[in-house]
Amino acid sequence: MAKLTSRSEDYSKWYNELVVKADLAENSGVRGCMVIKPYGYAIWEKMRDEMDKKFKETGHVNAYFPLFVPKSLFEAEEKNAAGFAKECAVVTHYRLKTDPNNPAKLIVDPDAKLEEELIVRPTSEAIIWSTYKNWIQSYRDLPILINQWANVVRWEMRTRLFLRTAEFLWQEGHTAHATKDEAVEEAEKMNKVYADFAENFMAMPVIQGVKTPSERFAGADETYCIEALMQDGKALQAGTSHFLGQNFAKAFDVKFTNKEGKIEHAWATSWGTSTRLMGALIMTHSDDLGLVLPPTLAPIQVVIVPIFKGEDQLEQISEVALDIQAKLKAKGISVKFDNDTHNKPGWKFAEYELKGVPVRIAMGPRDLENKSVEIARRDNLTKETQPIEGLDSYIEELLKTIQKDIYTKALNYREDHITKVDTYEEFKKVLEEKGGFISAHWDGTAEEEEQIKDETKATIRCIPLDDDIEEGVSLVSGKPSKRRVLFAKAY
Amino acid sequence: MAKLTSRSEDYSKWYNELVVKADLAENSGVRGCMVIKPYGYAIWEKMRDEMDKKFKETGHVNAYFPLFVPKSLFEAEEKNAAGFAKECAVVTHYRLKTDPNNPAKLIVDPDAKLEEELIVRPTSEAIIWSTYKNWIQSYRDLPILINQWANVVRWEMRTRLFLRTAEFLWQEGHTAHATKDEAVEEAEKMNKVYADFAENFMAMPVIQGVKTPSERFAGADETYCIEALMQDGKALQAGTSHFLGQNFAKAFDVKFTNKEGKIEHAWATSWGTSTRLMGALIMTHSDDLGLVLPPTLAPIQVVIVPIFKGEDQLEQISEVALDIQAKLKAKGISVKFDNDTHNKPGWKFAEYELKGVPVRIAMGPRDLENKSVEIARRDNLTKETQPIEGLDSYIEELLKTIQKDIYTKALNYREDHITKVDTYEEFKKVLEEKGGFISAHWDGTAEEEEQIKDETKATIRCIPLDDDIEEGVSLVSGKPSKRRVLFAKAY
Repeated sequence: MAKLTSRSEDYSKWYNELVVKADLAENSGVRGCMVIKPYGYAIWEKMRDEMDKKFKETGHVNAYFPLFVPKSLFEAEEKNAAGFAKECAVVTHYRLKTDPNNPAKLIVDPDAKLEEELIVRPTSEAIIWSTYKNWIQSYRDLPILINQWANVVRWEMRTRLFLRTAEFLWQEGHTAHATKDEAVEEAEKMNKVYADFAENFMAMPVIQGVKTPSERFAGADETYCIEALMQDGKALQAGTSHFLGQNFAKAFDVKFTNKEGKIEHAWATSWGTSTRLMGALIMTHSDDLGLVLPPTLAPIQVVIVPIFKGEDQLEQISEVALDIQAKLKAKGISVKFDNDTHNKPGWKFAEYELKGVPVRIAMGPRDLENKSVEIARRDNLTKETQPIEGLDSYIEELLKTIQKDIYTKALNYREDHITKVDTYEEFKKVLEEKGGFISAHWDGTAEEEEQIKDETKATIRCIPLDDDIEEGVSLVSGKPSKRRVLFAKAY
Repeated sequence: MAKLTSRSEDYSKWYNELVVKADLAENSGVRGCMVIKPYGYAIWEKMRDEMDKKFKETGHVNAYFPLFVPKSLFEAEEKNAAGFAKECAVVTHYRLKTDPNNPAKLIVDPDAKLEEELIVRPTSEAIIWSTYKNWIQSYRDLPILINQWANVVRWEMRTRLFLRTAEFLWQEGHTAHATKDEAVEEAEKMNKVYADFAENFMAMPVIQGVKTPSERFAGADETYCIEALMQDGKALQAGTSHFLGQNFAKAFDVKFTNKEGKIEHAWATSWGTSTRLMGALIMTHSDDLGLVLPPTLAPIQVVIVPIFKGEDQLEQISEVALDIQAKLKAKGISVKFDNDTHNKPGWKFAEYELKGVPVRIAMGPRDLENKSVEIARRDNLTKETQPIEGLDSYIEELLKTIQKDIYTKALNYREDHITKVDTYEEFKKVLEEKGGFISAHWDGTAEEEEQIKDETKATIRCIPLDDDIEEGVSLVSGKPSKRRVLFAKAY
């Protein structure tokens, strides 16, 4: 197995190689579309199941809406349409026929042209709000709290596995409310749900904030977000939750009779996370040997590797290993006993390091004599000897410790990479030499935001929700500012 | 709430009304595409989760492949391509732009035409086998046992909610094997998994069989299937499992080195079930009052309806009801306590009958005095009084009984509707007057099959797997036949 390119050598290359070598995903024969391989999909399934649980606990239900959006619906909410028009896959025909010039080939049948083109959904506000129109008449029909797990397509020109692909998997919540306050509360609540999921399940610290107007979702009045920091000092938007005001209700004429008998437009939110989280997961924790997975997301949490010469030794070890495996499984821990005789232990060690299995148990004949095993942690690469007696409880605790340690390590890195600056010079220096989030004053105009972006490639990632008010002067214009915002280069 | 059209009056209308009124699904603004509403989706989720569990128990893993299939890949396996070419949604462009004649409108940007058209997958053999080519080199890479949960699109001209829609949700297993025997075994095994799921989870009896050559999946060497019988005497294909031979391996050049060092093409299966099962579920069990759901699939298994006048009574009842609810939940039973004060009990009774909630508990002040409740079964509409003491255990058993009774009822209907006939006259008479499966001799030719289909609309649903050899003469040609096959009109 050839080594991975190291992160210090070429972070981007390291990432691409790791995604492929760890069997997470690969490019497909379709431009910009990926194949999510079983090992990668198993991690995504864990993310999905946990988020789904959280959505249901907060009162949401799942539903499914069409893949296609007729062009006339797509363009109804103008800002939203303008935001996605440049990256739409468009279905124009509904039939192929045999090529009259070559019977082995098929061509698009020109007689099967659609009267109205269909857009493959890049996001589902349009199709969903055109449906909600029929579901909402009275305040009694509200709130509607629906989530959808689906694929969406955005025709990106430059794609990277998980981070930016033409097709990706995601969830999109779409809620309708009787009042503005309730909708704002929902958008804020779901952003918190995302933050909680990222930190406690992905062990990935995030900053909660709101986007500046120019970074908002097309069609939103406010975009809440969670921003994570990758190991190369670049930020990654890991989830967004939008307060959509009455924009879609007005575009699709969704009105209801309120408690006072007055007719008004419904208030909306939408919120989403995607397979992009897989990219965030990888770039938050992994190292030059491969994946590092928090135990919550590891398809295999513990692997047992026997060290043996000959069938007899393997048999002796197997007896003990299977007993350990059974005890760990009884505690709900997923365990693989790799008794394959084709690959050597050294090969297996490297393979499970690459795959990010959090705990490796190695046991040979001498360990059996000593009634102990060797335990290796993937996250910090430490090894220790532990007695077989009580091993299940020890490992159960160890997995919790690893989860905590991985989070703390990422948090420390993130905290080390938030730098307060007060001059544009300093800003550029930190951005160049250290990266990370830069906390600075901004005058609140799109002009200054744009200028900084043009000159440095850094964008305002968010206006943090928990930041204190602090008077200052903005970086470029020198105008007064009431609070700092977070800049960074971003994925 | 207006009553449903009765089944005897118009079965097809009854079905369409029920799907919409019970909040399962509705037609969308996109031709032929449906919206699966939260209540319908909750049932589908239960089906999906149970099948997913069964697939994993039989060694399969999930993965995800692209939505789009480039035309050149699509046409590589000729039979498969020919089978789906007439119902393909085709993406030809990747961008919209502002209409120069009307700035509020968007048009397809002619400068953004794809070099090669993309087919929205009607099934994924082509895209998956073009991927497997890179995954399979040696017998050590086999078997590959992958399943995918996805949406697919088949541009059907006449659509019906769940039964036939342009877009539907499904799972598709795609496996690759080193030997023919192993692939055949896999195809047979998965058909059995489907049968087991249908009977034990959906309470829907099915006949396992193989399709005639003309009814096979396009590109298959053998198609196994499970066939169910609806209450109107029409059959419904509920799942299929295909032995694909080496057809796709040859089309996509998927070769491997076997144990003997020889190079050969891999052997394939694919197998699928879809949201069509929702239609099968409805038409197997439901009645003129609405849905009848087996407890395994009911989003709400038990509803508690308080019968009260005034707040005080409601409060007294609530105390007991919440206690019952807690005890049932502790047994893993899903319970809704409907303490809504807006709708009357009679309205609620009708609503939960429509929604197919298996057990209704009604309780008023007199019941409280008697320390009992009224229990109504949705399936057979019987009512009885039961003491509150020990109610949780009673209901737990009752749900099992209902599951069994629903299955038995459907099985009895099915058994009553398999008619053996020996002449074409009799065949037509039974088909006309009684419907159901007709067990008859067939000469094995596509000609006779076609003639019977043209003249009667009945098709050979399957050659049952468990049928005995029995000599006879075929219906139309009078040629010798070695076994009976099952004919029916079908969805």
